[in-house]
Amino acid sequence: MRRPWSVKPLALLVSALAAGLSLGALAADDSQPAMLGFSGANAATQAALEKKFDAQLNADDLREWDRDMSSAANNVGTPHDKANAEAMLKMFQSWGWDARIETFYTLYPTPKEELVEMVAPTSYKAKLHEPAVEGDRTSGLTENVLPPFHAYGGDGDVTAELVYVNYGMPDDYKELARHGVDVKGKIVIARYGQGWRGLKPKLAYQHGAVGCLVYSDPFDDGYRQGDVYPKGAWRPEDAVQRGSVADMPVYPGDPLTPGKGAPSKPGHFDLADAKTVLKIPVLPISYADAKPLLAALGGQVAPESWRGALPITYHIGPGATRVHLKVLNNWDQKPVYDVIAVMKGSELPDEWIVRGNHHDGWVFGASDPLSGNVALLGEAKAIGALVKQGWRPKRTLVYASWDGEEPGLLGSTEWAEAHADELQKKAVLYLNTDGNVRGFLFALGSHSLQATVNQVADGITDPQTGVSVMARERAALRVQGFSPSASSEDADLAAIAASDQEVPLGPLGSGSDYTAFLDHLGIASLDMGYDGEGVGGDYHSIYDSFDHYDRFGDPGFKYGVALSQTAGHTVLRFAQADVLPYSFCDFADTVARYVDEVQKLAGGIRTRNEQQNKLLGDKAFTLAADPTLTYVPPPAAKPAPFLNFAPLDNALVKLKASAAAYDTAFAAVADGGFKLTADRRAALDKQLRGLEQMLQYKDGLPGRPWFRHMIYAPGLYTGYGAKTLPGVREAVDQEDWDTANKYIGIDADVLLKYSAELDKATALLKP
Amino acid sequence: MRRPWSVKPLALLVSALAAGLSLGALAADDSQPAMLGFSGANAATQAALEKKFDAQLNADDLREWDRDMSSAANNVGTPHDKANAEAMLKMFQSWGWDARIETFYTLYPTPKEELVEMVAPTSYKAKLHEPAVEGDRTSGLTENVLPPFHAYGGDGDVTAELVYVNYGMPDDYKELARHGVDVKGKIVIARYGQGWRGLKPKLAYQHGAVGCLVYSDPFDDGYRQGDVYPKGAWRPEDAVQRGSVADMPVYPGDPLTPGKGAPSKPGHFDLADAKTVLKIPVLPISYADAKPLLAALGGQVAPESWRGALPITYHIGPGATRVHLKVLNNWDQKPVYDVIAVMKGSELPDEWIVRGNHHDGWVFGASDPLSGNVALLGEAKAIGALVKQGWRPKRTLVYASWDGEEPGLLGSTEWAEAHADELQKKAVLYLNTDGNVRGFLFALGSHSLQATVNQVADGITDPQTGVSVMARERAALRVQGFSPSASSEDADLAAIAASDQEVPLGPLGSGSDYTAFLDHLGIASLDMGYDGEGVGGDYHSIYDSFDHYDRFGDPGFKYGVALSQTAGHTVLRFAQADVLPYSFCDFADTVARYVDEVQKLAGGIRTRNEQQNKLLGDKAFTLAADPTLTYVPPPAAKPAPFLNFAPLDNALVKLKASAAAYDTAFAAVADGGFKLTADRRAALDKQLRGLEQMLQYKDGLPGRPWFRHMIYAPGLYTGYGAKTLPGVREAVDQEDWDTANKYIGIDADVLLKYSAELDKATALLKP
Repeated sequence: MRRPWSVKPLALLVSALAAGLSLGALAADDSQPAMLGFSGANAATQAALEKKFDAQLNADDLREWDRDMSSAANNVGTPHDKANAEAMLKMFQSWGWDARIETFYTLYPTPKEELVEMVAPTSYKAKLHEPAVEGDRTSGLTENVLPPFHAYGGDGDVTAELVYVNYGMPDDYKELARHGVDVKGKIVIARYGQGWRGLKPKLAYQHGAVGCLVYSDPFDDGYRQGDVYPKGAWRPEDAVQRGSVADMPVYPGDPLTPGKGAPSKPGHFDLADAKTVLKIPVLPISYADAKPLLAALGGQVAPESWRGALPITYHIGPGATRVHLKVLNNWDQKPVYDVIAVMKGSELPDEWIVRGNHHDGWVFGASDPLSGNVALLGEAKAIGALVKQGWRPKRTLVYASWDGEEPGLLGSTEWAEAHADELQKKAVLYLNTDGNVRGFLFALGSHSLQATVNQVADGITDPQTGVSVMARERAALRVQGFSPSASSEDADLAAIAASDQEVPLGPLGSGSDYTAFLDHLGIASLDMGYDGEGVGGDYHSIYDSFDHYDRFGDPGFKYGVALSQTAGHTVLRFAQADVLPYSFCDFADTVARYVDEVQKLAGGIRTRNEQQNKLLGDKAFTLAADPTLTYVPPPAAKPAPFLNFAPLDNALVKLKASAAAYDTAFAAVADGGFKLTADRRAALDKQLRGLEQMLQYKDGLPGRPWFRHMIYAPGLYTGYGAKTLPGVREAVDQEDWDTANKYIGIDADVLLKYSAELDKATALLKP
Repeated sequence: MRRPWSVKPLALLVSALAAGLSLGALAADDSQPAMLGFSGANAATQAALEKKFDAQLNADDLREWDRDMSSAANNVGTPHDKANAEAMLKMFQSWGWDARIETFYTLYPTPKEELVEMVAPTSYKAKLHEPAVEGDRTSGLTENVLPPFHAYGGDGDVTAELVYVNYGMPDDYKELARHGVDVKGKIVIARYGQGWRGLKPKLAYQHGAVGCLVYSDPFDDGYRQGDVYPKGAWRPEDAVQRGSVADMPVYPGDPLTPGKGAPSKPGHFDLADAKTVLKIPVLPISYADAKPLLAALGGQVAPESWRGALPITYHIGPGATRVHLKVLNNWDQKPVYDVIAVMKGSELPDEWIVRGNHHDGWVFGASDPLSGNVALLGEAKAIGALVKQGWRPKRTLVYASWDGEEPGLLGSTEWAEAHADELQKKAVLYLNTDGNVRGFLFALGSHSLQATVNQVADGITDPQTGVSVMARERAALRVQGFSPSASSEDADLAAIAASDQEVPLGPLGSGSDYTAFLDHLGIASLDMGYDGEGVGGDYHSIYDSFDHYDRFGDPGFKYGVALSQTAGHTVLRFAQADVLPYSFCDFADTVARYVDEVQKLAGGIRTRNEQQNKLLGDKAFTLAADPTLTYVPPPAAKPAPFLNFAPLDNALVKLKASAAAYDTAFAAVADGGFKLTADRRAALDKQLRGLEQMLQYKDGLPGRPWFRHMIYAPGLYTGYGAKTLPGVREAVDQEDWDTANKYIGIDADVLLKYSAELDKATALLKP
């Protein structure tokens, strides 16, 4: 579901302070691979196990599964979606897993009627259709293929003037105001990119627009990026990006059942209860359909950064161009089929490692999500083979292939909500993947997992270069930092990559199935995959097909196997470790960086507001503007107060001390060969796996109680992108100083609670 | 000649250190306008004089002159070019000036045959023609209108594969090498922009190409910037940018007579003596003609920053696309008519203020150059009127309307070379203008002139806003520095603009007629004008017409009058000052900044070379690259030594002390009402006007002895853009460390010589 080409290799945000412990210090034995949580002897056993696991992986399996699963439309509600779930159920069972399908009936609208036409100054009726292309065997299929649409947009039939709003993000509306343009009563047209698509119609509605079109500009994933399909991988002129526009930054999952599992059978519902359904009609369109509309727009010329790659002068409007937009949906409940496969642990069956990827696509979904889903199947088959050879995981493995991720993380969210209590007691990790293409490893997640991810990545061989995927990632970060256009963050990251420090994980926002686990339940989570080379413009179109993926995404499914290895080894580390392999200095250092960022952010706003008011007082904005164009200066800024960051700073001192105490004690125990009793280990594991939940606040984030994690959240106005320390950071962004002060206190409390619980774990390490 | 929209408002380069004396300290009297070089009483007289001068200016005059002079093709060799010179001669004479035409016969090639055709994979014959457009009354004229061409390109008839080289600058060839692409034996196609056009075929030739096309991408001045002509101001698809490609960074002017004036009559010449004529054929083309060629290119996809705004995927080539390029020229000598008008000084007739603008265009030239030329005429008429009222300048004014600037600064260079001795003895200032459009004041030049320019600009009212043009400029700089995307230089400049410090002048490179005066003769020079708002894509095309300019460039010629005021007041300050109004701390501070920059540049290269070699050693470039694409890592860098900057640092200490001593002594004398004898003043003036020549080195810059100024020069690989401390900076750029060390010594010597001569001036200030 996440737009694959929007992710840079590995973590983006890092400061020079993000050091962490060096890996050497944590290695049990220099002659063994560094393996957090394993005694020297067990590390050798584990390395052998992972080798056996690797030997079971087969790229041809992945390729065949992907082809079969993407051979017909498989979005929610289609026969092939159900058939795929049933086929996977049989596979898991044949590999020795205890598997079942869990079904949830969720609200899932499908288009009944769609119309986009320009009625003035000339007439044009949008095609809203993706034609078959040469050499793509599924692009001509029509059975169960829905026309391009946005799930959970409103019904409506409106005719109004058109306004171009660039990416349709908050800053774009500020820029519109500078041009004296108001979208009240208008239909807006936004281009895809920069923020999550669902924010575009939401913000349009909040600004008074009556309808919204979202198109794929060729600048972003069309001919400007490369040859278009079928000659190359990029978006052809008629391709459309479908997608969800449910208000997921408030809560994902079934709009009718926030916080609890959806029913297993359809029933009566009241659409008014679906709080995350948007209020205005919205449709995605191709650039072939957008071009005549944009070319006809009058009004001022769009600012430099708003101009795409169509061969026109981009204007803002409004003016002569009037558009008629009509969207009607079938508002039905549809079944969502989660395939859940369990391999019970031999020693610690009540400790669960949950591993998921979704299986529903927007049409055929060969890349998104099936390329990741087949990697997950490959792992399950390999583990099944190991079990048949007599091996058994120490802890329990729960493999899940989710349904309904595309419209709203439906399958994973409803399952997580339905099993919330058990998951909060038992889960030690949720590991997510999604679409996967040729390129570089990326990994985002809870920072207590950073050391293990680095150690795993050191042991995976890159299929193209023969070095480890971590070595390749480090090379890429170093070269990126060497670029003349590198930012200071790029340079810092390059310095880390060139050292023996860990490569930092990025923080998780949203956009895939980890959301409920991390943000709602407080389970330490990871999202990983390969990206950066097998990219194109097939995303969420009918051209995300097996033929496209096999030519451009990951020819030969080599990175599919690499993903099976990367996720599989991570799962096996958590399954087999003597003690769960978390590392806490990484987390403490990362939170320290976030605190520093938020303080700088608040200080920056204070300075900027002062400067802005000074410039306003001196009429500088007006004097600098071209008097022949409409220009409205920004309004006077409210002076920003100093915030009391002391509680957070003090909590950080405690967190750092607790983290260092644990990691030091843990290293000592590891050096000693983990000579702890089984009871003590179980008690320790229990104490550790509850830790991430200490980061939750019962009332959640302002205005969105479903999001309870106080360190990571998807931004209310970024959608995919993470906001760290979100309660504070978003309040600062919005200059809501009371809320910022309140969440400084809340965040300090959760960090103190976390530290206290971590101290209990440290106590359990003492003899 | 300078591409108008490539200039940002005022100076670009500044550090927080660029302070200078505050204006207040130099004002003779707080109740009077700050007026460097004037006693309090004389400042009041001067203010009244400037008011009278302003009252004589008339926008309708400027508009009418512009319309008449642009009514027919007026490039070198046309009847209307001569007619314009003769008409101006009559005007100057009617206004009471002692005027003459000086004629030089210079090499001036014109196209005899031009052909661009694609011969594979499909065929396309370029139109090479700019059609008439609705509402533009001169666009349909054909008499004496040459087809688009590049003056001083080579003759040739070649057929070869095509390679796209982006802007065709040195870094672009480095990037091509990373892609394994060589242009040897190929024809290159470059887009206009980023560096001077003449470097594009020169660099192509140096890299082995056999031909060169240069086109105007719509990204840079076509539809991406705004509506195209005649709907809007921007470049329509068939418009072509003509221009010179003579190797002017080596020497400008007649290619046959470097360093001396060209003959006044045609004669025998040997084309082999024309060292600045390029060796390969080159033609400028429109984007309508470029599109089929670029669309047919094969090879790798062009890097992100290379992609323009055509609706195609930009490829590098080479491959299937073969192009046939044929260019033959008439290699004739043509007359160049400089109109020279003198108003002899009443007190100091041997001190000359030289004021120039050219009158030849590429076709009709209503904007470039006539908009500036008519401002100059306005000044001359106003001064003539003052003289008729009985006033007379104290120093001599020399007003010049140059011919042949477009093909190679011919008229100004030959005149400056012909009158070199007299100019070096008498000239106190060369003040240049060129095309002028609505917007913000920009000013570049010798930094001893910075204080006077700031003081003049404080007194000019912006026609659109009613504040001074300096206040508007400061507002623009402050707003630019407030932008979230502001660079640290922008922020520094904004801080200066918000303070009472002077706004710094930018350094002069080349691109207009000041070049010979500053770089060859060492005369303190200025280039100024208005820019930033009345911009478009008419540059050097047939659409640079009166109709275009009057609609878009400067409707009503209000900024024409503002330019007459700005240049006129500057001329009158130098004409009337008690003592010539130079300021030396500004210069010393600026040179200190340049020295700092050059040291950082050298240090940066040292670090970068080390990093590059480390990355090469670790194979990081190769590991970071996509193995399915051709990628060639950069070659090993030679380690960069530490340079001995001590001579320059020591010379700076001396320069700063000498400058402070002069400015302090001067302020004291000014406060005392300039009670110096007439002889002492004349001696002081004489000492001062020779100072800039102390910055010359007899053998000039490496490989280009014509360029003798050691502080400012056009870059050998920027063309228009200035390189400061060019001997050192360009050697550092090219990692030629011996030359860098040599020019550190030379630059230190000229600064010491300058300081010693400045000390003599200071001594003359003492009673």
